[in-house]
Amino acid sequence: MKLGRRLAVEGAGTAWLVFAGCAAPALNASPSSQGLNVLEIAAAFGLALMVANYAAARAASAHFNPAVTIGYAVSGRFPVRDTGPYLAAQTLGAILGAALLVRVASGRPGFSVAVADLGSNGYDEHSPSEYALYAVFLLELAVSFVFVLFHLLMSSTFARRKIAALAIGACLAAIYLIAIPVSNGGANPARSTGPALFVGEWALDQLWLFWAAPLLGGAAAGVVFRLARRRSSIVPVPSRDGV
Amino acid sequence: MKLGRRLAVEGAGTAWLVFAGCAAPALNASPSSQGLNVLEIAAAFGLALMVANYAAARAASAHFNPAVTIGYAVSGRFPVRDTGPYLAAQTLGAILGAALLVRVASGRPGFSVAVADLGSNGYDEHSPSEYALYAVFLLELAVSFVFVLFHLLMSSTFARRKIAALAIGACLAAIYLIAIPVSNGGANPARSTGPALFVGEWALDQLWLFWAAPLLGGAAAGVVFRLARRRSSIVPVPSRDGV
Amino acid sequence: MKLGRRLAVEGAGTAWLVFAGCAAPALNASPSSQGLNVLEIAAAFGLALMVANYAAARAASAHFNPAVTIGYAVSGRFPVRDTGPYLAAQTLGAILGAALLVRVASGRPGFSVAVADLGSNGYDEHSPSEYALYAVFLLELAVSFVFVLFHLLMSSTFARRKIAALAIGACLAAIYLIAIPVSNGGANPARSTGPALFVGEWALDQLWLFWAAPLLGGAAAGVVFRLARRRSSIVPVPSRDGV
Amino acid sequence: MKLGRRLAVEGAGTAWLVFAGCAAPALNASPSSQGLNVLEIAAAFGLALMVANYAAARAASAHFNPAVTIGYAVSGRFPVRDTGPYLAAQTLGAILGAALLVRVASGRPGFSVAVADLGSNGYDEHSPSEYALYAVFLLELAVSFVFVLFHLLMSSTFARRKIAALAIGACLAAIYLIAIPVSNGGANPARSTGPALFVGEWALDQLWLFWAAPLLGGAAAGVVFRLARRRSSIVPVPSRDGV
Repeated sequence: MKLGRRLAVEGAGTAWLVFAGCAAPALNASPSSQGLNVLEIAAAFGLALMVANYAAARAASAHFNPAVTIGYAVSGRFPVRDTGPYLAAQTLGAILGAALLVRVASGRPGFSVAVADLGSNGYDEHSPSEYALYAVFLLELAVSFVFVLFHLLMSSTFARRKIAALAIGACLAAIYLIAIPVSNGGANPARSTGPALFVGEWALDQLWLFWAAPLLGGAAAGVVFRLARRRSSIVPVPSRDGV
Repeated sequence: MKLGRRLAVEGAGTAWLVFAGCAAPALNASPSSQGLNVLEIAAAFGLALMVANYAAARAASAHFNPAVTIGYAVSGRFPVRDTGPYLAAQTLGAILGAALLVRVASGRPGFSVAVADLGSNGYDEHSPSEYALYAVFLLELAVSFVFVLFHLLMSSTFARRKIAALAIGACLAAIYLIAIPVSNGGANPARSTGPALFVGEWALDQLWLFWAAPLLGGAAAGVVFRLARRRSSIVPVPSRDGV
Repeated sequence: MKLGRRLAVEGAGTAWLVFAGCAAPALNASPSSQGLNVLEIAAAFGLALMVANYAAARAASAHFNPAVTIGYAVSGRFPVRDTGPYLAAQTLGAILGAALLVRVASGRPGFSVAVADLGSNGYDEHSPSEYALYAVFLLELAVSFVFVLFHLLMSSTFARRKIAALAIGACLAAIYLIAIPVSNGGANPARSTGPALFVGEWALDQLWLFWAAPLLGGAAAGVVFRLARRRSSIVPVPSRDGV
Repeated sequence: MKLGRRLAVEGAGTAWLVFAGCAAPALNASPSSQGLNVLEIAAAFGLALMVANYAAARAASAHFNPAVTIGYAVSGRFPVRDTGPYLAAQTLGAILGAALLVRVASGRPGFSVAVADLGSNGYDEHSPSEYALYAVFLLELAVSFVFVLFHLLMSSTFARRKIAALAIGACLAAIYLIAIPVSNGGANPARSTGPALFVGEWALDQLWLFWAAPLLGGAAAGVVFRLARRRSSIVPVPSRDGV
């Protein structure tokens, strides 16, 4: 598939992921405490990614997440020259998804983007339970590493690709169950950037962490996959979509 | 399969979808606030559609939703002359499903159809969080577009059809997680009509929106699918059921 | 497979289903109101049935439910002479499952079987929202009809059998999401009998309804399946397990 | 696959399972009572095991649980000489997973490992509902037996292996829905050991039960599987990974 078309898929899928995943914090105004809707938000992100994966039907080159793209590039299974365009398309898509959320949320009496968090990620006083910077960094690094390594594994054989869309969505739900109480759930720099642009101030100040930790975790997953492959019989199948 | 039989499937499936999906708001009288049962209602709609899809076993011609039927017709994959009968069967089924719910709910002390909402869709003061008309319209348009486009994609190749029943059910659950706090979750004009007929008054006054926005979203999805197909190698497989 | 072995499977599976499904009401003493754990209990029943179906690996002759057995017998796909032994094995298994629950629950300070309901089914003042007899009967009839008809459909072709274990579990979860607020969730006379024997009194007095409505619903599903098959091309595949 | 590599998989998978499963009790500081997050914790354990199973892609020799390893050894499908190394790798992995959790949790103001339970298992006053020793023992024995027997069954034919990762994860979720209110959910001695080492005191004093009951249940499942196999046509397929 040509790069232009793949970029359109990346942008549309990431817009959908941000729109669906951040809908509960952005749109649900009922007084449910954070402990109650962790499961709901994790389910929204996991189901939305599963849907995007099925729609794209390309386990190895539909990422919707800069950390995943970096992981594939580091592992040697994605052309380095496409990395920049992919990250731009994902980020642009995430901004569009967040913009649509803000547009809808503005129809609620009393809504103000100045006080809403729209599911933005943060640390210290902007973490749901006020986790310190180092703890948020460590957690984001760990869950991004797991997620990207799992993504690489699930696209590495034909048999696994058949179940990859469902399994990768389930993995995202699992890491969001872990991460929501700590950071509101990141592991995806594009997803973090979308709402942060509209919330502004603290969300933009703290955005660096939600790029640094996931990209580091994703790159580490790429290295581990590459080393493990060299020492084993795993030979990733060629992707059929020109990558 | 003959049209008469397919219409019976449409009617029965839509009745089941409305009965199962609207059961929580209609039958559960315990004092749970809206924030708590978003996940429960979304799960009910998603599982019910998955069950109906498996039972019908026809990814391309079992719709249970006028917006889906319009999307298939616009995309050129469904005969225009069958559209009217399909919409009538779906709407009739939805009314039967809602009637059964009202019959059961009447067995609860203190139940009165005059004050119940039965999961009806609404805007302004009839939206769960009082979302304005334009926000509800925008959201219904967006989620209907996503759902119908995904439906068209999942029935477009034999490989995808194998997983279509599960994936389409999961997609419905995802869009209901988004939409319930805003509109009680529509994206299906038949599903909106069933409870509205029994609630009457405001529900009927506002029903136009839950036909207009989903049909517009579904038609847009049909156009996008048609354009994307022309520019790519996607050639939808012929359906085996005479459509 | 020989009848004796199949009966052991029926008994063990029904014991597991009752044990897992009724565990939340029997063992969870924390003060969660009914509206909160509908989803949890429905998930427990659905997952437990899915596990039992996978373990048995026989879509057409592993029932774990007298209503299902009656439906298969009426549809002509199960030998009438095996119906009695099946129902006895299912009921005995359900009693064993409930007995294990009571044994565990007795280890909780303050537990008394006299005041616990163990997830028993009931109507009037023993329905979670005090639904009247006729409403509970109507609902149990409707959801049992849907469940048994779906069971018959999912075992009727080889392609469907591959997904039957998961789909039938999902269908049970869906009908329990509907039924728990009304009757605590029945649609399975053996499941209703297990806890009722230990709760006694009202639970035994009202047990007749949870045999009558599900068996009637299951028999109706068997009739509908038989008629639909006659008028269509559906020819159920022979089961490989001697039924 | 060589033993060293399999041990690395066991350790990494068990670390991930403990990290993901115990995250909610360790990291979520919001005031949700126990009745609310049973479903969330059960989902976390179930999804995490499903992910680990897919990543390992070896239904018969990726256990992540000493009770499972003992069950396979007793059933004659796992070399007894590898049992010790497997148990050591699993326990070490679980400790690493718990250590990472403690490290992250320490970034929350007011966190003290002395008062946290990190999801540790316990009986009497350390059971969520103060269940007595015998009840906790009986429950852990029962759910471990079910889980290990199901594990043995799902890896016993090629057809079942295709769905084993998902089905075994679903089974773990089901038994945790049962067990969390009683014991916080064990059925896995390594998972119990990880958090207990950091909580110390009572958690270490009571740890014996969460080794004894699951291993006994797992061994019983191995015996039952062996007997059932002898009397039936089940011939487990050879595993392709040198076991």
